Amino acid sequence: MAFPQARAVVLLSGGVDSSTAAAIARAQGFELFALTFRYGQRHGAEVRAAERVARAAGAERHVVQTIDLRVFGGSALTDAIEVPKSDTVDEIRGGIPVTYVPARNTIFLAFALGYAEVIGSSDIFIGVNAVDYSGYPDCRPEFIVAFQHLADVATKAGVSGTPIKVRAPLISMSKAEIIREGMRLGVDFSFTHSCYDPTPEGSACGHCDSCLLRRQGFRDAGLVDPIHYATDDC
Amino acid sequence: MAFPQARAVVLLSGGVDSSTAAAIARAQGFELFALTFRYGQRHGAEVRAAERVARAAGAERHVVQTIDLRVFGGSALTDAIEVPKSDTVDEIRGGIPVTYVPARNTIFLAFALGYAEVIGSSDIFIGVNAVDYSGYPDCRPEFIVAFQHLADVATKAGVSGTPIKVRAPLISMSKAEIIREGMRLGVDFSFTHSCYDPTPEGSACGHCDSCLLRRQGFRDAGLVDPIHYATDDC
Repeated sequence: MAFPQARAVVLLSGGVDSSTAAAIARAQGFELFALTFRYGQRHGAEVRAAERVARAAGAERHVVQTIDLRVFGGSALTDAIEVPKSDTVDEIRGGIPVTYVPARNTIFLAFALGYAEVIGSSDIFIGVNAVDYSGYPDCRPEFIVAFQHLADVATKAGVSGTPIKVRAPLISMSKAEIIREGMRLGVDFSFTHSCYDPTPEGSACGHCDSCLLRRQGFRDAGLVDPIHYATDDC
Repeated sequence: MAFPQARAVVLLSGGVDSSTAAAIARAQGFELFALTFRYGQRHGAEVRAAERVARAAGAERHVVQTIDLRVFGGSALTDAIEVPKSDTVDEIRGGIPVTYVPARNTIFLAFALGYAEVIGSSDIFIGVNAVDYSGYPDCRPEFIVAFQHLADVATKAGVSGTPIKVRAPLISMSKAEIIREGMRLGVDFSFTHSCYDPTPEGSACGHCDSCLLRRQGFRDAGLVDPIHYATDDC
């Protein structure tokens, strides 16, 4: 089977990072096959954002895979544990945050690998970023390297000598650099969603780690964040 | 958190291999947390077998995770592709079989890793076997080694210096050796299910690769396979 255009599976959460990763894959000439997970988040805002972003990026297909990480428990994003809130980025605690979902990126990349193999995709793009999220073990360069090695031996493609390449183009970029690169490539950040704890109307809380890092990133980039924050109303 | 007994997550398909792997984990003193996938198989017989085996093995808990691999397609086990049938083991074709599900063991181990981390499990058991299933890239020793390395860097446990150990005790055993070991440890093989294409009543077809390898294994072990085959009626 020959494909006129190289295909890439893009893990798309609907946040700033994965939306920029999708734009980078697009700019490199790939046909995009977006993959999003509904994994017992406490809100569907992420999935809706991913749908908007996939459409805007001209994805050939967008698959939403439902998995139940609640059955294992263990994270503020899937459990009833309270999402920590702060006023500034400096208040974000060190170490591995309670919002860490065990093995999440391993699970996401494993599905991406299966999807890539089925559709004959040569590349997988993941928007992980070690600078602003260094607390997560599965956002580090050594994790990507280890997953690449796994992909080389785990798949028919790898055994046949054409391993699927795992690309993490944002791995050493700051949030501000990611935002600038996304802007340059035409990402409409008003479509994106980053908040761990949005209001029932879907507004970002403005105070969870993810909101704080996003807002600081836009400030550092000298750009205006186009989304609405609940705190804007106060 | 201290646990009185070491915990192991056991990937349990309900077949001969994973049932024996569970018995080995049990014999080594682990408290068992069984994990089974409902992944768009064309039959639920596997999941029912896994439930019987988990109960018989005295598992502390048995989680059935539903995932939709059909959305990707690409395998006789999830698609409508015909399952190949033969009369003897020698007729099984070389190379990677069409029953290969892309990245299946990578996905299963990724979930097991998340589960293990959540419950504080020190070990994961998987019943892969490179001798009789050498056609599957993700049943080889190098796959297990690569996944172990990934587990070391992907998790909080690994980063904290107590990585979760991935154990594949059957990796270099023949099917006959696995069956003998299972028998020795008290596995009731009448509870297990191996067939890729059972009859509507749940009887094994007797001619798919999995049935052929199982039957040959029992013959080689000099033991009687206690399950019913549709061909027994002819």
